[in-house]
Amino acid sequence: MDAAQQTQWNELKARWREIYDLTGAAALLHWDQATYMPPAGGAARARQSALLERLAHERRTDPAIGRLLDGLEPWFASLPPDSVEAAHYRKMRKVYERATRIPAAFAAQFTEHVANTYMVWAEARPANDFKRVQPCLEQTLILSRQMAEFFPGYAHIADPLIDMADEGITVATLRPLFETLRRTLTSWVAVIAERPQVDAAFLRRHYPKPQQLAFGERIAAAFGYDFRRGRQDETHHPFMTKFSHDDVRITTRVDEHDLANALFSTMHETGHALYELGIDDAYDATVLDAGASLGVHESQSRLWENLVGRSRRFWEHYYPALRATFPEQLADVDLETFYRAINCVTPSLIRTEADEVTYNLHVIIRFDLELELLEGRLSIAELPEAWRAHYEESLGVRPPDDRDGVMQDVHWFAGPLGGGFQSYALGNIMAAQFYAAALDAHPQIEAEIGQGCFTTLHAWLRENLYRHGARYTADELLRRVTGRPLTLEPYLSYLRTKYGEIYGSLEG
Amino acid sequence: MDAAQQTQWNELKARWREIYDLTGAAALLHWDQATYMPPAGGAARARQSALLERLAHERRTDPAIGRLLDGLEPWFASLPPDSVEAAHYRKMRKVYERATRIPAAFAAQFTEHVANTYMVWAEARPANDFKRVQPCLEQTLILSRQMAEFFPGYAHIADPLIDMADEGITVATLRPLFETLRRTLTSWVAVIAERPQVDAAFLRRHYPKPQQLAFGERIAAAFGYDFRRGRQDETHHPFMTKFSHDDVRITTRVDEHDLANALFSTMHETGHALYELGIDDAYDATVLDAGASLGVHESQSRLWENLVGRSRRFWEHYYPALRATFPEQLADVDLETFYRAINCVTPSLIRTEADEVTYNLHVIIRFDLELELLEGRLSIAELPEAWRAHYEESLGVRPPDDRDGVMQDVHWFAGPLGGGFQSYALGNIMAAQFYAAALDAHPQIEAEIGQGCFTTLHAWLRENLYRHGARYTADELLRRVTGRPLTLEPYLSYLRTKYGEIYGSLEG
Repeated sequence: MDAAQQTQWNELKARWREIYDLTGAAALLHWDQATYMPPAGGAARARQSALLERLAHERRTDPAIGRLLDGLEPWFASLPPDSVEAAHYRKMRKVYERATRIPAAFAAQFTEHVANTYMVWAEARPANDFKRVQPCLEQTLILSRQMAEFFPGYAHIADPLIDMADEGITVATLRPLFETLRRTLTSWVAVIAERPQVDAAFLRRHYPKPQQLAFGERIAAAFGYDFRRGRQDETHHPFMTKFSHDDVRITTRVDEHDLANALFSTMHETGHALYELGIDDAYDATVLDAGASLGVHESQSRLWENLVGRSRRFWEHYYPALRATFPEQLADVDLETFYRAINCVTPSLIRTEADEVTYNLHVIIRFDLELELLEGRLSIAELPEAWRAHYEESLGVRPPDDRDGVMQDVHWFAGPLGGGFQSYALGNIMAAQFYAAALDAHPQIEAEIGQGCFTTLHAWLRENLYRHGARYTADELLRRVTGRPLTLEPYLSYLRTKYGEIYGSLEG
Repeated sequence: MDAAQQTQWNELKARWREIYDLTGAAALLHWDQATYMPPAGGAARARQSALLERLAHERRTDPAIGRLLDGLEPWFASLPPDSVEAAHYRKMRKVYERATRIPAAFAAQFTEHVANTYMVWAEARPANDFKRVQPCLEQTLILSRQMAEFFPGYAHIADPLIDMADEGITVATLRPLFETLRRTLTSWVAVIAERPQVDAAFLRRHYPKPQQLAFGERIAAAFGYDFRRGRQDETHHPFMTKFSHDDVRITTRVDEHDLANALFSTMHETGHALYELGIDDAYDATVLDAGASLGVHESQSRLWENLVGRSRRFWEHYYPALRATFPEQLADVDLETFYRAINCVTPSLIRTEADEVTYNLHVIIRFDLELELLEGRLSIAELPEAWRAHYEESLGVRPPDDRDGVMQDVHWFAGPLGGGFQSYALGNIMAAQFYAAALDAHPQIEAEIGQGCFTTLHAWLRENLYRHGARYTADELLRRVTGRPLTLEPYLSYLRTKYGEIYGSLEG
């Protein structure tokens, strides 16, 4: 790297740092809106958020970045392809090209349309009025197809939309994977439906908020969440958000008549936060200071929430502490009952409340519908009925209304139709694949969890996944860390073992 | 106004709205830093704040604003001078000229120097180490003089620095005013020193935080603070901050062994917030959506904190409620004792803890020292001893160290030397002048306060002061509202009556 290249590279990093800081400030605007903002602050806040997003977008698409990247092309060509610098350059190029491929006028039109759709949905959903959002969704479908067309060369129209969240993943990869998953899970759900269920009503007793919050934060700290670099606040919808390399926060929602809600949501968001906080300090404020993909991100939230947090060993250690926290509420509930209650498999209408076995069926329904819409095989007018039919076919339940049917998730009403759901299923699958690799490397991890100790697991995840940030794609990470591409086997094996033990053999 | 002018005017307002929104977002960054930010978030936060401030500064000094203002000059000349549009134009011109008069390189140098000085002070103050900040302050003095010199045509070198906070106020105005004030107050302090004092030790009993916060918020709501457009959080140093026209927040600090601290700080910050929230909705996101001057702003915090909140009538109504909140702590304290305790006059070392009679002496000491420094009659090396001498002369107390002496206030370590303190004294003086006008207009106000009702006072302040925002200067407001320019008489009369009643005649 000569002096001129060094200057160009430094300028490129300085420009990215400004985008990073604008994005962090915009995230704070959003966090405040969801946590503490007084009700009347909304109108100006929308203006402030739009302004910071516009400023960040202007900087991301500044032609000067293209010129700097072009100027550094010879340097990049000379780098070992698996070096950090090469990954850094590739990622910046990717972000720049993705941002500039969409014309500014279209981006503005899309943003405005989506903001409007969101507001219509927020009123139409409680009113169970799909007809009100239908014209919005019809326009969203048109715009989603247009957006995909800005990225030619993909095999399927959904591929560029999927690629935005999960780089390198395509419909061709997902279709057979999801088909196997759907077939296996529906058969297991049918088997489990015939087996006796534990009475989980005790989870709905009264659990005061302060103790719920304190217990959740105790677990988060035990997982390794560093409260000097983060904090937890209450919101309507839990999320993880990042303001900077050393300020990664989570939120939760407490229902005093639902012990499981806040507890597992805290574990879930802690998983996301551990990922971000584990990224190498050397990547601070660079394009690499982020997760590899939404799917990999979700794999970490699900790993900590489910593979750790809903495991028998975890509760062998923590159930006495939980019972000490809620001695009256849990007086008549033994460990076995508690463990079965938090792992109870029942087909239901709402994705976010689904258990581990049925969860992916919810996701696959949405994925299938997105493809039908994008391929033109389904119209928006037909969508509510198609939703009901899919639910009946996959889960054996039929939503009585659209509120808890096609309108239940925000995704289609706050973004494109397509590319929004596969990450959840990918996350579940990858969580098991990564976890199996961790157990291979350190078989003592499960015993440690049984002692409330998570350091070996956390250290392994930091070393093998977290510290790399966005250096590798999901596929590269999977191959490096597990020696294999994306594969269903560890996930199905995990479910088969765990739920076979709870419900008896799942093979009919 | 022709079509071209209308377009220019709209563009000017749109440009200002962007500055306003960037400033609001920057204020949120600061608020979060002072309230909820985890410790490790500081480094990136400093970068984010500097970025937003730079973006706002670039926009404030954009030559396009100068061209638009020039293009609209004929329209402005045709307006009635006392119209809102004329005030709007004048204010924008003022802000633009003030911002552009300071070269960008100097502004950057000053900002960096001040940020560095602040960090040195934050460590040197607890260590009582003036020598460490001395070189910083010497540079601050040089830069403060340079800054003043960018604004030629003033009679005194401190005038442009004062003008930034209190437009139109000069050393020539303040010197005789402060001299009268100093002479009068020192004589009263001497008289009071000979009179018996109430035992205020009960204020230091244990008052739990939740009840303190709830009581303070009850008062704030009673004053008219609209919690749909604001909220209160805890910080180390209380402040009022504005994110937008409809999001104006206050903070407070609770000491469980000091009943007065949080209570009066909440009233004080509520006064600031009522002012901002009372500004005409038509001025939303314009340059007029702000207070007239720092002095006028302080007049409203002091009016609600002192003239209302420390009045006998106020506590005739609220003391029973306070006692019901803290029944054990206040069991042996009657109304009269409480009233005298919260109005106890004692010379002390710390400005922010001073009573109404001694407070302005603290301010005048700082003002005098600033002038001596700027005029070259005093060096930074001599400042600590000069501070002690002034305190001894004015208040009869001598700080045992520099921590609670010359290093106690952040102002000189976070801004220029000069223009930073006069607003506090002006606020006290104007508070009494405005309040007297309110009582002239509505003599029932005091009786209403005795019933815990503040609507007539609040409505009068909204109508006569708040709604105008930055439309008028402080001098214009005083003349319009009270019929007189700035005058000491109502203030001295207020103190003479109130403290004569508590301590007996102050005239020796």
